[in-house]
Amino acid sequence: MSMPSNGSATPSAQRAKRADAERSISAILDAALHEFTASPDVSMSDIARAAGVGRVTLYAHFPSREAVLEAVFARTIAQADTVLAAEDLDNLPADRALARLIGSSWRIIDQHRSLLVAMMRHLGPEVLHTHHEIPLIRVRELIRRGQDEGAFRSDLPVDWLVTVFHSLAHAAALEVDAGRLLASDVPGHLEATLLAVLEPR
Amino acid sequence: MSMPSNGSATPSAQRAKRADAERSISAILDAALHEFTASPDVSMSDIARAAGVGRVTLYAHFPSREAVLEAVFARTIAQADTVLAAEDLDNLPADRALARLIGSSWRIIDQHRSLLVAMMRHLGPEVLHTHHEIPLIRVRELIRRGQDEGAFRSDLPVDWLVTVFHSLAHAAALEVDAGRLLASDVPGHLEATLLAVLEPR
Repeated sequence: MSMPSNGSATPSAQRAKRADAERSISAILDAALHEFTASPDVSMSDIARAAGVGRVTLYAHFPSREAVLEAVFARTIAQADTVLAAEDLDNLPADRALARLIGSSWRIIDQHRSLLVAMMRHLGPEVLHTHHEIPLIRVRELIRRGQDEGAFRSDLPVDWLVTVFHSLAHAAALEVDAGRLLASDVPGHLEATLLAVLEPR
Repeated sequence: MSMPSNGSATPSAQRAKRADAERSISAILDAALHEFTASPDVSMSDIARAAGVGRVTLYAHFPSREAVLEAVFARTIAQADTVLAAEDLDNLPADRALARLIGSSWRIIDQHRSLLVAMMRHLGPEVLHTHHEIPLIRVRELIRRGQDEGAFRSDLPVDWLVTVFHSLAHAAALEVDAGRLLASDVPGHLEATLLAVLEPR
């Protein structure tokens, strides 16, 4: 049953080994998403058990819980970006497009709230920021269009306005997670707050 | 030179021992503030060296770097609250009082920016939130007064408006720390953003 681990494996054995590894990684990420969604403080043993792999296999692919978490988060962000890309924002006025983007962003954030809280707790804000660079391009482009069209204020830099969008959405997720805010109130609060910030002066 | 460590010490020996411990803790917190201000990722050895105490003494008082960090942060927040209490906000109209509170809060945040970043990175957002409950009472009272006087909007709950204040001030600190925003631009950005959010509808 054992396979040579050096370069002497046949091409088909190497392919089989790679397919095996891909299946393990996929099972680990699926299980980790489920576990982190249930609790931000899940352990490596919990993840291995839920994925149906041994701890040795888990650690062979991911050196730490933080590494699993970051990989799950990166995959979730990529999927979220595909969902957001399907929104037809270009044919709406900037303020209505923003309201729609707030609604769809919040649905994604709320669905993965525990994962986001786990990222904030275990990996910190800079790692979180790095993973949001691609989805925030969409927010940045929309704010810039609104500024160009005169629908949004231009006396504050677009970078700051993107930071406001991003940090208020995440603050809302933390408030909901801590039981201080109802998830159902968030889209209305975010829309009222962000449209007030962006209103031309 | 050795002192009995059980209950048989004389009252004056106990007092001397307690004074010794207080001096050590004070030296550790002073050194840790200095070290965390220089870098959010300082080690326990760095802190012990800077405080002029042995690692055994350091660990006797604080079981982990996170414990030192939290104690330094708690002391800093208490000092900051004393500074903010000295601001005469009650005799100003709510919007001017808010602008002043933004300015003084930002000066404190900017001065202790690395400490705040260390808290976010090593202890996470919930611990940070707990330590801000007392200073945020001042923000909450001012927003409520502005709502009562009709100077601020009342269609959003005061809890959410306090969250907006707090999360934007911290987001600004992170942006400055990451080199994406100039500290000198922050008071203007925060004031323009928060006054727009609070403006009556």
